[in-house]
Formats: sequence, C-alpha cells, structure tokens
Amino acid sequence: MKDGTGSRRMLADEVSTAAMSPAEARLLFRGGVVTPTAGWCAGYAQANLIIVPKAQAFDFLLFAQRNPKSCPILGVLDAGETSGPLLADGDIRTDLPQYTVYVDGEKVAEPTDISGYWRQDLVTFIVGCSFTFEAALQEGGIPIAHIDQGTNVPMYRTSIWCQPAGSISGPLVVSMRPIPASQVPDAVRITSRYPAVHGAPVHVGNPEELGITDLSRPDFGDPVQIQEGYVPVFWACGVTPQAAVMESKPALAIGHAPGHMLITDARDSSYLV
Amino acid sequence: MKDGTGSRRMLADEVSTAAMSPAEARLLFRGGVVTPTAGWCAGYAQANLIIVPKAQAFDFLLFAQRNPKSCPILGVLDAGETSGPLLADGDIRTDLPQYTVYVDGEKVAEPTDISGYWRQDLVTFIVGCSFTFEAALQEGGIPIAHIDQGTNVPMYRTSIWCQPAGSISGPLVVSMRPIPASQVPDAVRITSRYPAVHGAPVHVGNPEELGITDLSRPDFGDPVQIQEGYVPVFWACGVTPQAAVMESKPALAIGHAPGHMLITDARDSSYLV
Repeated sequence: MKDGTGSRRMLADEVSTAAMSPAEARLLFRGGVVTPTAGWCAGYAQANLIIVPKAQAFDFLLFAQRNPKSCPILGVLDAGETSGPLLADGDIRTDLPQYTVYVDGEKVAEPTDISGYWRQDLVTFIVGCSFTFEAALQEGGIPIAHIDQGTNVPMYRTSIWCQPAGSISGPLVVSMRPIPASQVPDAVRITSRYPAVHGAPVHVGNPEELGITDLSRPDFGDPVQIQEGYVPVFWACGVTPQAAVMESKPALAIGHAPGHMLITDARDSSYLV
Repeated sequence: MKDGTGSRRMLADEVSTAAMSPAEARLLFRGGVVTPTAGWCAGYAQANLIIVPKAQAFDFLLFAQRNPKSCPILGVLDAGETSGPLLADGDIRTDLPQYTVYVDGEKVAEPTDISGYWRQDLVTFIVGCSFTFEAALQEGGIPIAHIDQGTNVPMYRTSIWCQPAGSISGPLVVSMRPIPASQVPDAVRITSRYPAVHGAPVHVGNPEELGITDLSRPDFGDPVQIQEGYVPVFWACGVTPQAAVMESKPALAIGHAPGHMLITDARDSSYLV
C-alpha cells in the first residue's frame, strides 16, 4: 500500500519535488507515494483525469466541448489504452498518486492504483489543470497559499450549471487562490495566457454569487488561510467532470483524487498563447 | 427544385447579399437558391457541416478534438435535433444552399434539401469556416480572389495526414487564397486572430510540399487566377471531415457542398481573440 504522509515528508527532505522530471514523479507515484501534486515538476503541465466506459464517452467529450473553460481536453486515450504521448512509457492506471472511483455516481473507493477496475472499454480523458500556471504566477511574484501552507488547493462546487450534453450535466467546480488585492490584475493577466489549462479566473471576490457560503469548508481539497488584504480568486476546475458524474450517475467513472494530478510530459509553455 | 445559377444572378442584381441577415439568407436557401456563400452576410460566421449517425459521433468528435486547426467545432446538435442557437428558427436539413451525401464513403447525391435522408440518430457537427475571416481580410485591404472573380474558393486534398480517431482518418484539406507578397504578413496577422475558424495559414507558398501538383485543378470548388506577384496561401479547411468520410467510409454521412455553407447567427467578432 502507498504511505502518503510519511513518503511525502521523506521526499520533501531528500529532493526538490519541483525539480523532478514527470517520468520520475510518475514512477514514485506508481511505487506508492501519495501526495497532492501542486508545486511538483515545475514547468510541466499537470492534468485532471476522467475515465468512463465507451458507452458514455461521446456525452463526456461533448460535455467537455461545451464547457471548455472547466474541461479543456489535452488528450484522449482510445478505449482500453493505458498510455499515450502525454505520459511516455507511463500507465494511466498506476501513475497518479491517488484516484476516485464512482459507481452509479457514488464514490466507492479512493485507490492508489486502478488496475483492478480496468476494462477494455474504458476511455481516458486528460483535462487541463490550473496547477500548470502556478509556476508562472510564482514567477510573477504572486504567492500561492496552498503551496506556501503545504496543503491541497481548496475547490468548491458552485451554483453555476454547466451546459449539459446528453446524459451528462452538473455544476461548475472552481479552485480558489487568495491573491493580494494589488496583484489581482497580474494574476488575471498571467493566467489568461493559458486558456488550455482553465485560463483567466471565472470570478474575483464575492463567493456568495457562486453559491459558496463558507470558504473554510471546501467541497474538495483543504481550506487555506486567507490573509488580510487578500481577495479570493476563482478559476474553473477540472474536477467539474467528477461533479457531473455525481449528478448524472453513470454506472462507472474513475477520476483522479482532487489535487492528486497526472503530471504530463508536456511543457507548461506549450499551452502558453 | 432549386435553380442555382439563375437565382444567383437575379439576387446579385436585386439586393446586396453582403448586407443580408443570416435568417434571410437561410430562408432563401430553404426556398431553393443555390450558390457558394462567400461574401454573404458580412460580419456573420459561416460554418461547415458534417452529420453522422450516433454510432460514429464519438469518433468524429474526437477527430475534431485532435485536429482543431481543420475541424474547429462551433456547435453540436444532439441526435435528431435540426435546430439550435447558431441557427435560430432554422432547420439544418434545408437551410444550406446545397449538401453532399456519402454512403460507404462514396458521394451519392448533392441535394439542396436532406429531409429525405433524415434519421433520429443523426448528430450534426457545425465546424468553423474560413469565410468567417474574409470580411476582416477585405477590411485590411487584402483582395479575395474568389470573391472578386465570382467563383467558389479552391480547395485541395493535401498529403498531410490528420491525427486519426478510432475508425476515422484522412488527409488535411486546405483552402487557397492568392495574396500579394507584400500583404502576406498582414493576412497571417489578421487570420491568426480567428483560431476558432481555422486561424493562421498552415502554409505559405510552395504547394508541392503539401502534395498539390496543379493549383489550377482543385479537388473541391473552382480554380482562381493567380496574378503576377501573388503568393498562394493555404488555410486548413472544414471540408477535411468530408475527406475523412471518403477515406474511412462510414455507412452514412452528410456534409455541406464545399463552399455552400451554413450561415450562422454568430458574429464574426465573437470568434476574434
């Protein structure tokens, strides 16, 4: 079994996870390390995962096409395929730190390996993740609270409904980063240059308008401390397909565990416009 | 029956097709007018069409996702749907000037109305078209040969292969516009701002590199005269899905007749970045 916290502490002491290559990181996760991946493999794109049977694949791809801000598709593995150009020599069943398995829309397991659930009709969607632009934010002098505080990014289910597609519908999920008020324009400017990984924020300030009543109780991930003078800024989040799974209840679906991403071989810069 | 040439001449004399609204144009096409649509309804986006049975819809949507330059999806109508927000009060079966019907990859008909072929399992993909940015090119002082010469745009099957998706594969199709050499940079700059409708050219000059041996014999549309000092510039073309149909031979597929587009209610400017 993977041993999350212990492995993580050890690693943080021994090597810089930011300097690690994606292949090295995937190998560690395959070997049992469990950790949120924010800050890992600086300069490489991280990605959300949603895996569904072929029978639901069209509806999910159309859902993504109709909701590009929350579901930007970076790649699709054909039914039964477990590797591809975004994860050279990788295995999608083992190379993420942790997964979430849904049966009829209910979370039934959070395994660190999904080989036991694998079927030849499963289609894998690799979806852009906002962790990708965090290195650019940091280079721009913008602090990232969840990295500084050593926790998972906070994510919230909103009251905004996505465009449905066939059998699939659900709410927009957002990630939140508190940003110093004077740096909000920079945060918007920098992230807007990465449309393939959620791009510009969907909302700045005023969480109530998104139906979020308590920032200290995220629906996914961990809460972060919001310092005086910081404004909560919300980006569309690739956990949105999992919220749609909970709502739409397909017989089987597998996602990443929120914050525990696929680290791809694609450079952040390849998604820069 | 529609009476192409005659109706077109009459119309050109009577009203400005450039000033027409998309709804008016669609009504004319529904009533029987057959004509290439370049230059019609200035300021409104034109679109390619590819209609396939639900059984092939995932492969086509994935083909589009993997080849976004040639197949930028503007909208998808659910199985059996014949209208949608891009064609308010319209009917996808009648509102284009002309269609192309393929059975097992062979062109079997070029009807002006596809009501007789309609089935409840047909899924309609509306794909961006480079006619959308022609008004912007003209505003930039760049002549458009096929508009000035009153013919359909020339389109060519290239030797470049698209990324396949499941059962669907085929060559990239390009449209060609001869541009004065001094204005090629402007043409690139202007069209690159419209990524949802093919964006920047894929190639400038040297058709042989694309496997095009004779510019005077396009695979679709009409040849245009290339004046001295003009360079052939090639843009990815939304006829690419039809070339994939010819190659991949699904049991049934319906496209627009090349150059005879869906005129949508979306403003060109809504696709400007």
